[in-house]
Amino acid sequence: MANFDLMRQLTRGEGGKIILLVMDGLGGLPRESDGLTELEAAHTPNLDRLAKAGSCGLSIPVARGVAPGSGPAHLALFGYDPLVYDVGRGVLEATGIGMEIGDGDVAVRGNFCTVNADGIITDRRAGRISTEEGRKRVELLQDISLPGIEFDVRAVKEYRFGLVMRGEGLHGDIADTDPQQTGVAPLPARANRPEAERTAELVNRWIEVAKERLKGHEPANMLTLRGFSMDPALPKYADVYKLKAACVAVYPMYKGVSKLVGMEVIATNPDDSTQDEFNKVAEIWNEYDFVFCHIKYTDSRGEDGDFDAKVNVIEDVDAALPTLLDLDPAVLIVTGDHSTPATYRAHTWHPVPTLLWSPGTHIPDRATAFGERECMAGALGQFPATDLMPLALGHARRLVKYGA
Amino acid sequence: MANFDLMRQLTRGEGGKIILLVMDGLGGLPRESDGLTELEAAHTPNLDRLAKAGSCGLSIPVARGVAPGSGPAHLALFGYDPLVYDVGRGVLEATGIGMEIGDGDVAVRGNFCTVNADGIITDRRAGRISTEEGRKRVELLQDISLPGIEFDVRAVKEYRFGLVMRGEGLHGDIADTDPQQTGVAPLPARANRPEAERTAELVNRWIEVAKERLKGHEPANMLTLRGFSMDPALPKYADVYKLKAACVAVYPMYKGVSKLVGMEVIATNPDDSTQDEFNKVAEIWNEYDFVFCHIKYTDSRGEDGDFDAKVNVIEDVDAALPTLLDLDPAVLIVTGDHSTPATYRAHTWHPVPTLLWSPGTHIPDRATAFGERECMAGALGQFPATDLMPLALGHARRLVKYGA
Repeated sequence: MANFDLMRQLTRGEGGKIILLVMDGLGGLPRESDGLTELEAAHTPNLDRLAKAGSCGLSIPVARGVAPGSGPAHLALFGYDPLVYDVGRGVLEATGIGMEIGDGDVAVRGNFCTVNADGIITDRRAGRISTEEGRKRVELLQDISLPGIEFDVRAVKEYRFGLVMRGEGLHGDIADTDPQQTGVAPLPARANRPEAERTAELVNRWIEVAKERLKGHEPANMLTLRGFSMDPALPKYADVYKLKAACVAVYPMYKGVSKLVGMEVIATNPDDSTQDEFNKVAEIWNEYDFVFCHIKYTDSRGEDGDFDAKVNVIEDVDAALPTLLDLDPAVLIVTGDHSTPATYRAHTWHPVPTLLWSPGTHIPDRATAFGERECMAGALGQFPATDLMPLALGHARRLVKYGA
Repeated sequence: MANFDLMRQLTRGEGGKIILLVMDGLGGLPRESDGLTELEAAHTPNLDRLAKAGSCGLSIPVARGVAPGSGPAHLALFGYDPLVYDVGRGVLEATGIGMEIGDGDVAVRGNFCTVNADGIITDRRAGRISTEEGRKRVELLQDISLPGIEFDVRAVKEYRFGLVMRGEGLHGDIADTDPQQTGVAPLPARANRPEAERTAELVNRWIEVAKERLKGHEPANMLTLRGFSMDPALPKYADVYKLKAACVAVYPMYKGVSKLVGMEVIATNPDDSTQDEFNKVAEIWNEYDFVFCHIKYTDSRGEDGDFDAKVNVIEDVDAALPTLLDLDPAVLIVTGDHSTPATYRAHTWHPVPTLLWSPGTHIPDRATAFGERECMAGALGQFPATDLMPLALGHARRLVKYGA
């Protein structure tokens, strides 16, 4: 991973500006008809031109053979080894829906479930109620307060919700209340260490009240909690890279991870197009050294298994790209956090096409277009995603020489 | 880095002979006229033939994105991770000018400076006096001796000098006397731990005498000291690789680093040509298992920004190469310690073209000439420089199989 001690030592705090453009799930696999991947099939004159002029390569998200979730995959792109920096499920889920997690707060992921008259779980997912029904149950849980502690509950999707506890002296080392099976009652919250005992007790008191309020609201008449966790206190971009960094993303999850590494999250609308996002980057460009811009729908269409729709998303990005190029960044990196081939309909472990464009410091290679095969003999080779930030900083002339 | 425990376990102490030919700062970037790098533009029929027959690849000096100094970059080529084996500034500077640093000696780098009548620093570099003027000041500092301690002072360049203390019970953990600013007096030498207190006191007594002697010799009428350090006690080639190794280099710095890893340093003249150096390799060839041969001027011309002159240095090496080939080494490696593109005029982080020629054990790849682009799809891939020695030993049949 990025060696943060080394980065702290070498970063100058000045140099060129960097754009990191991430198309979620960019990497693909060939379709049967012509053997081309989504990126290879897409008409992308701008990306092809940059690939031809600049350095290409393939990024390994977490480890060879391992398909990552978007949380760890983005941590890696930001230089944080996700196998070292463990961001708890509760924190990921809560930041994922834009909840604020302060120092000392405890976040946890909740599931509504169905219990029978004896309190025994009969359905761990409450019949997969709709998001709308989930929201109604979350309404019931508002304003449960205990002395000195605030409980913030928000709906995620269907039967899932996020819960953040705020107050003094909380501790997140608490075992799940989800027994992971039906036919038994939810477990009480239990502290894994003495410091967490008071928090566990507070959680149990909250559950008691919640249980009362959910009574009669079948099928979601009870809840379980998983992944108690606290702010992982990740080193921040300003500290390790001396970068003033911003995030332009539409989905809350990516805003959340960006915030955890100290980026400022720029306000966007849920239905912003790629062009809207690029316009936002242009608006804030003067204020930042580094802008991370996230495009969600390459991944979504890959998961749908819709090859052509993923191609269209890539073509939209290519068409809007001049907006970013007009900013004249010292370094523009275009990559993905992982692969989501439409033929596979899920995240995969395949190394991700990456292009680094940095006139004056990049070395052109033999890639003549942006695509999986073209990137294979590129100047950047195959590299761990966590090396991307040092590469970006080097090319932006933001690092001093190591040693005499 | 090279796993020394593994190397100790696997090395046979016999096998083929190895030449490691390092062209300092070999890697380059394309010039505008025709898009070729220095190495690509150079007419190198011998190197091209070896590249075509052998295995090519790109070596990553220290870490992706990080431009190294020549000290750490050479340690890496020798198999020592420079992020682990920290050779202090004082030791590097002193070995760099050929000073002997024995076990227990303390080396430090010195700067002449200007102080006013109140002893306040007004210029930290003494008006950047000439090397000639620097030498005169160093003369003044000869023969300052304290009971049981020898102080060896030698001029480096301009206002810089090296100081080595020799005697019993010395310790190098001492803070700089250079306050890194003007408007204040030089700091006294201060021990960072109790074991270094006596040494710090001796340094202060030496400074008192030096100060008296420099009085009136404006602008260099005082000095500061930085980077107190001792022999890093690196594992030696004979120990970790079972190699009897020699260094043929013209610049003192490279002789110094070679000596730190236990190579025997062959006497050369400062104005030896590449052909002279290769002749020296031939002369000593029967005596050694491994010869490191260093060519300095690829780096110098790169730092000058003189593309054509760097090309000429490379062409000289190619023309002299038959002298090395006539020795019939089992393994010949040609590489650089880092890149110094003439267009960039400084060390960079770009991976370095590397060719490994070892008839009978190398696997030919699709490289048809020796150059950055040809090496990108080579048999060796992109690899950490610290893996080069194990590769050399393997190809030279000097390692036994690991495990049954």
